[in-house]
Amino acid sequence: MTDVTASLDLIKRGIEEVLPEALLIKKLQRGKPLKIKAGFDPTAPDLHIGHTVLINKLRQFQELGHEVIFLIGDFTGMIGDPTGKSATRPPLTREEVIENAKTYEHQIFKILDPTKTTVLFNSSWMGEMSAVDLIQLAAKHTVARMLERDDFNKRYTSGMPIAVHEFLYPLIQGYDSVVLNADVELGGTDQKFNLLVGRQLQEAHGQEPQVVITLPILEGLDGVQKMSKSLNNYIGITDAPEEMFGKIMSISDELMWRYYELLSFRPMDEIEDWKRAVAQGENPRDIKIRLAQELVERFHSRESATKAHEAFVARFQKGRMPDEMPELRLEAANGGYPIANLLKDGGLVKSTSEAIRMIKQGAARIDGEKISDHSLMVEAGTTRVYQVGKHRFARISVQ
Amino acid sequence: MTDVTASLDLIKRGIEEVLPEALLIKKLQRGKPLKIKAGFDPTAPDLHIGHTVLINKLRQFQELGHEVIFLIGDFTGMIGDPTGKSATRPPLTREEVIENAKTYEHQIFKILDPTKTTVLFNSSWMGEMSAVDLIQLAAKHTVARMLERDDFNKRYTSGMPIAVHEFLYPLIQGYDSVVLNADVELGGTDQKFNLLVGRQLQEAHGQEPQVVITLPILEGLDGVQKMSKSLNNYIGITDAPEEMFGKIMSISDELMWRYYELLSFRPMDEIEDWKRAVAQGENPRDIKIRLAQELVERFHSRESATKAHEAFVARFQKGRMPDEMPELRLEAANGGYPIANLLKDGGLVKSTSEAIRMIKQGAARIDGEKISDHSLMVEAGTTRVYQVGKHRFARISVQ
Repeated sequence: MTDVTASLDLIKRGIEEVLPEALLIKKLQRGKPLKIKAGFDPTAPDLHIGHTVLINKLRQFQELGHEVIFLIGDFTGMIGDPTGKSATRPPLTREEVIENAKTYEHQIFKILDPTKTTVLFNSSWMGEMSAVDLIQLAAKHTVARMLERDDFNKRYTSGMPIAVHEFLYPLIQGYDSVVLNADVELGGTDQKFNLLVGRQLQEAHGQEPQVVITLPILEGLDGVQKMSKSLNNYIGITDAPEEMFGKIMSISDELMWRYYELLSFRPMDEIEDWKRAVAQGENPRDIKIRLAQELVERFHSRESATKAHEAFVARFQKGRMPDEMPELRLEAANGGYPIANLLKDGGLVKSTSEAIRMIKQGAARIDGEKISDHSLMVEAGTTRVYQVGKHRFARISVQ
Repeated sequence: MTDVTASLDLIKRGIEEVLPEALLIKKLQRGKPLKIKAGFDPTAPDLHIGHTVLINKLRQFQELGHEVIFLIGDFTGMIGDPTGKSATRPPLTREEVIENAKTYEHQIFKILDPTKTTVLFNSSWMGEMSAVDLIQLAAKHTVARMLERDDFNKRYTSGMPIAVHEFLYPLIQGYDSVVLNADVELGGTDQKFNLLVGRQLQEAHGQEPQVVITLPILEGLDGVQKMSKSLNNYIGITDAPEEMFGKIMSISDELMWRYYELLSFRPMDEIEDWKRAVAQGENPRDIKIRLAQELVERFHSRESATKAHEAFVARFQKGRMPDEMPELRLEAANGGYPIANLLKDGGLVKSTSEAIRMIKQGAARIDGEKISDHSLMVEAGTTRVYQVGKHRFARISVQ
């Protein structure tokens, strides 16, 4: 175990809140491995790097010598949607849950150390629970308290139905912490209420309560909205090396520092040094390349990272992409933006007919690659470098 | 089975509501015995005649050929008070529940026909229920709907805590109806919400829903507040024959008709005839005697009823108690009213010193019995006939 101050610095890197910090210090001072709990959805995982913010934090705990419990909340998933309203949420079978867990392992063990990770399923204890036990759990919480939870409150006041069993799910999540005797639980900021229920239940069961650590939601490639598949502003952890490299290179410099804090394992001291260097004139693109390399190496391999870097250099640096270029944002109608209009509205050509002509001549590029189809629709949620001729460049986000 | 119209008349006698009546008619028309459910508290019963309003209705169903399920809700009783707030509600043991059930049987079989009554305990199925089943039950109801229940609504809006498990209890009561496949459930007006939950759950389980019948809360001897031990305005079903007889004779004429409707098994036609007779000058006291006899006979024996009647006649009619007398109501301070003040404030004497003198002379009576203690405190919640000398009478309610 390293010393407490250094541990605390690493743990607090990039987090939203730690509740309460004094208890975390107390637990760290004991010098024994802590049980770090994080709960995951039992449905098939298809993670993007936004999800890895939390997994990275788990890894940092592992580096500090602690034990990670990767808890798959399959109990509620195996009940399915008991309201019967959502046809898309049929109950998961045990086989599906196990299959999904394997997919999780395949993905998370690119970050976590398997020897310090215990994967558990909460159905192993919740499946045995009786109605009596659940009633006794429910007796320890008030309706008023539940209705304080942001989302419940909004639904209740706006007349949207809340089924009674939804009040039981936070209790189940909290009870998992009792069963595991968790020292720390991690979750997104939207999980704060549920994480605090765990503390209450542990205290009611005579345990030292867990420390709650909330993590921010990562912004997507546009730097504004949260990273999500449906907004198409994400980097999938199974994205091909060159695609992943290119996406990281497309982000703004500001977003790059945010990604460094939340996604990189480089020490913060080093990152601060680079910030100073950039302030003194160093090209931020070179710093961005290091981030792209680190992430491609993590999810693929060192070799893939090197190749992706070379491909990027071949495409862009040989095309003499400038260090500075106009950055702008365009609003797509109906989820797409016709390429000819985009080049015109982005100031790269004077008219759509010029755009079409340049595309036909092979003189227009997206992220360094020739555009072959002049009727291409650019998807909303993308940020790409557009180029016409040798000298006209713009980094354009389509929203 | 008698014909449907006659059955319906009997069933609707004295009730508050039947929901929905059309379904009750449909069920009756099938001509098969119906399952009539009523739930009772598992704590030691010490019934007063207010409780028998519901039991009488069960008996009427038995007379019509239906089957009564006397359901003891021991499941929640055996959990106790899971909030741990009430030290006075420790969990009941199985032995206590069985002991209490015996006491119930001893009391209710003075009214119900044991051969048409099934006594059941809901712990037999609820004790086996899993948390999963309970969650699925809870999924079928919304928080908003639960908060519509009068008492929950008052507590929520006034900031009084409602524990989450309290939302589960109506579901359990409703689920009992599913397990029993009940045709009709009876309960007090305060139970209406819970009884309707039973209908919903039966429908959700593909059953024909039960008909809900609510019964009024019986007024106590004062004719105003509900009958209750704590208000001391009750007739216990284990009261001694003469005490029971005297208490019934002390009620107002108006209340007598109410008691006839709810407590007597005489046909309503006959009761209507008596009402007409009283309107034409017959002494209502003679009608009241018949009610007193009927009830004493029910809870004791015909012989006891005859003796109690004779004792009453000896005390009152020999003392020439008038048919008409002033009736008044006095407010007690601190739950009691000193007898000397009561006789003065009731207009029977001019001063408390006269009252004390008359008591010492043996010239003051309560319900025909001499008052021996001039410092007697008359309890609040009582209605008695007070007499001073031979001619001064008053029926006084102390509140």
